[in-house]
Amino acid sequence: MRTITIWNEFRHEREDDEVAAIYPDGIHEALAELFRTGATGDQYEVQTATLDEPEHGLTEDVLDETDVLLWWGHEAHDEVADEIVDRVQERVLEGMGLLVLHSAHYSKIFKRLMGTTCSLQWREDGATERLWVVDPGHPITDGLGECIELPETEMYGEPFDVPEPDQLVFTSWFEGGEVFRSGCCYRRGSGRIFYFRPGHETYPIYENEEIQQVLQNAVEWASPREGAPRSFGERA
Amino acid sequence: MRTITIWNEFRHEREDDEVAAIYPDGIHEALAELFRTGATGDQYEVQTATLDEPEHGLTEDVLDETDVLLWWGHEAHDEVADEIVDRVQERVLEGMGLLVLHSAHYSKIFKRLMGTTCSLQWREDGATERLWVVDPGHPITDGLGECIELPETEMYGEPFDVPEPDQLVFTSWFEGGEVFRSGCCYRRGSGRIFYFRPGHETYPIYENEEIQQVLQNAVEWASPREGAPRSFGERA
Amino acid sequence: MRTITIWNEFRHEREDDEVAAIYPDGIHEALAELFRTGATGDQYEVQTATLDEPEHGLTEDVLDETDVLLWWGHEAHDEVADEIVDRVQERVLEGMGLLVLHSAHYSKIFKRLMGTTCSLQWREDGATERLWVVDPGHPITDGLGECIELPETEMYGEPFDVPEPDQLVFTSWFEGGEVFRSGCCYRRGSGRIFYFRPGHETYPIYENEEIQQVLQNAVEWASPREGAPRSFGERA
Amino acid sequence: MRTITIWNEFRHEREDDEVAAIYPDGIHEALAELFRTGATGDQYEVQTATLDEPEHGLTEDVLDETDVLLWWGHEAHDEVADEIVDRVQERVLEGMGLLVLHSAHYSKIFKRLMGTTCSLQWREDGATERLWVVDPGHPITDGLGECIELPETEMYGEPFDVPEPDQLVFTSWFEGGEVFRSGCCYRRGSGRIFYFRPGHETYPIYENEEIQQVLQNAVEWASPREGAPRSFGERA
Repeated sequence: MRTITIWNEFRHEREDDEVAAIYPDGIHEALAELFRTGATGDQYEVQTATLDEPEHGLTEDVLDETDVLLWWGHEAHDEVADEIVDRVQERVLEGMGLLVLHSAHYSKIFKRLMGTTCSLQWREDGATERLWVVDPGHPITDGLGECIELPETEMYGEPFDVPEPDQLVFTSWFEGGEVFRSGCCYRRGSGRIFYFRPGHETYPIYENEEIQQVLQNAVEWASPREGAPRSFGERA
Repeated sequence: MRTITIWNEFRHEREDDEVAAIYPDGIHEALAELFRTGATGDQYEVQTATLDEPEHGLTEDVLDETDVLLWWGHEAHDEVADEIVDRVQERVLEGMGLLVLHSAHYSKIFKRLMGTTCSLQWREDGATERLWVVDPGHPITDGLGECIELPETEMYGEPFDVPEPDQLVFTSWFEGGEVFRSGCCYRRGSGRIFYFRPGHETYPIYENEEIQQVLQNAVEWASPREGAPRSFGERA
Repeated sequence: MRTITIWNEFRHEREDDEVAAIYPDGIHEALAELFRTGATGDQYEVQTATLDEPEHGLTEDVLDETDVLLWWGHEAHDEVADEIVDRVQERVLEGMGLLVLHSAHYSKIFKRLMGTTCSLQWREDGATERLWVVDPGHPITDGLGECIELPETEMYGEPFDVPEPDQLVFTSWFEGGEVFRSGCCYRRGSGRIFYFRPGHETYPIYENEEIQQVLQNAVEWASPREGAPRSFGERA
Repeated sequence: MRTITIWNEFRHEREDDEVAAIYPDGIHEALAELFRTGATGDQYEVQTATLDEPEHGLTEDVLDETDVLLWWGHEAHDEVADEIVDRVQERVLEGMGLLVLHSAHYSKIFKRLMGTTCSLQWREDGATERLWVVDPGHPITDGLGECIELPETEMYGEPFDVPEPDQLVFTSWFEGGEVFRSGCCYRRGSGRIFYFRPGHETYPIYENEEIQQVLQNAVEWASPREGAPRSFGERA
């Protein structure tokens, strides 16, 4: 059985009534619920961790057990301690999977692993987004149709300052006229990293069943193989 | 001085009055004129070649002198002789640049070099397209703003069945709701290949100055280096 | 249960006593035995097919059932009918895995999928080869140490005229002074392709247990996912 | 005219008589001399900078003028201030070229841009190395034969923990039995990065004319284009 750890900044939900109404227990609990009860619910042990816990909840013990880490952050990226970023980076390079969600493009851990600014354009406009599957043979797209339509989203636009993805899985179309590389796969060391754009603190994106399907597929894709070495360095 | 050869199927222009009105001498002549008279006009020798010439105009002698070949085709891809495709492929692998324009995604030479079907979705709807620069550091984007807007185009949609591009330079947004990887760079052997989506037999796409800029940048990018070996095989 | 089809030219073994002594029933039967009886032996249905059978043994029915195709060829690449190459290419693009072994770098199907000459340097010298794992996090390397040593092999040297691999898994060191990219992963359409250098008609390379491990790992890696679409085109 | 800045830790040369004998004015001066007097000597303005200067010699003004930065470091990587690493990273993402030499694989700036440990295996054994050209169509190989032979070098071995290179240009063979990806190209933001393995504080590697050719080709390849934007961010 694999273990997923869902990390959330968990500030919006405690400071903003509008966000609290949608995610009363925090986005991490909504995501945890998805993995506990979804179609693959019996396949995963689910942990959560948040910024204001000691060591941000990401102790050595927690990471030792983690196969895939999901990361949500937005307004407090700078409060994440560098030593925890070091620790997470080390685990990813050793094989732990990492899913980077929405505004976490600006998280320290994603910028660390990419080596670039990870900047992009954005606009809060609540207009329609379509995520087109550009790589229908990729396992992250299993079970999807040709695109996912989200009626109300925040816009993210190019240029997205990341290294050329190993595989580009989704490209978004926005009603307001922009495009964005919304699903990007990377390998760093022995770890697999998936950046996935959808998500928001007020639009209920994670209730969409196709988005849930992508998250489950991505966790499966990013999971280290059973019996595979957990350490890159030790192989040599 | 570099030599460009512009290859055109040259059928539409002789069979269809509407096309003939826009491109009376053929699309190849319009493109040739661009390279003869543009900002870089004194840098290039320009040749043209068409399907109904002997050897489709692509004799050994013509290709021997060619630094970059531009390819336009649409309705008669199958009439291109396999031995000419062999010859062009060989030259590309030896270092000749190749620009594949619009409907030439289905040309024999592009499918040969990609190894895939090169299929895509399409719709003639005359609606707006925006080509977003997703790689602003790439030389093919020099002199451009953040996007190129074309008021009336044919729509091309994903999935585009090509190998993951070495560099993705442009992604198109279409008014009708689709996206497309519109500018894709590849290296095969010693040659550089650029697929560029814009172009049409009736919409006057190649009169757009930013599109002209891209074509000139792409020819520059795809050109073999002076003094570089023309043969991959001979290096070994 | 997955189905593997092992294709062999099967000429050397019938024409050359030295080869026949090592592979009395053909290389295909030696490879088939490996998959029937190996550690993963209960996971695979194994078929074989050879050049001199009708349709080279690769009928529509055989390919319909095939999850991963292994390809061995050497002296008769040109005798493979183009229509069978078309058929195999189509299946790979739809998701069938393909393992290209040793001298099959010059097979029509590999050249078709790569778009390049696939040329290399070689020398029959029976000297030592070491295959170094350059990507220890890749599933094709599971269970291996840092390198595989083969005491007697044919040398293959760079430059190897293939597109930049999506992932380079092995690089060979040869006693005589050369190097070679010996394990190269590609995706084309929905299919996964692995080129693996080791193998020979007289050196008993496939009896090496680590080489067997790689072949089994590679079949696993190249297998289409259960429930995944078998057709790229139909997804759109 | 382009400006090259050569950065050197400059400690070995002042602390170790053996190193001082080979590089009395420091490795940076030997490299500077190469670019001042080489075949392309009239094309470059050459600056140097060292660890013990204020701001390590990499002031805003120095970097403002720099088109390509060469980086040599070995025993004092940790003494480079993080704020200078930030500054150099920012310039690379904006388009400044970066050549990372030999033991600088462990420099802070290279690890920052790669996002990985950049670890490798090594052995001081003074045995022969051959750098094979695996990409003979790449401009960094212009003017070279099929390989460069260095009679005495330090061995670097795989696995090299870096992201899959955009282009792999050289692979080394070592007499002692190892291989290494010795010439690796990357783009990050608008900048081009080339890691080049050869170099040593006591073996006189940089006196080899083919190695000098590679360095000059690499500087040319990594140079920002005239008139190209110096800032990635501002394009958006």
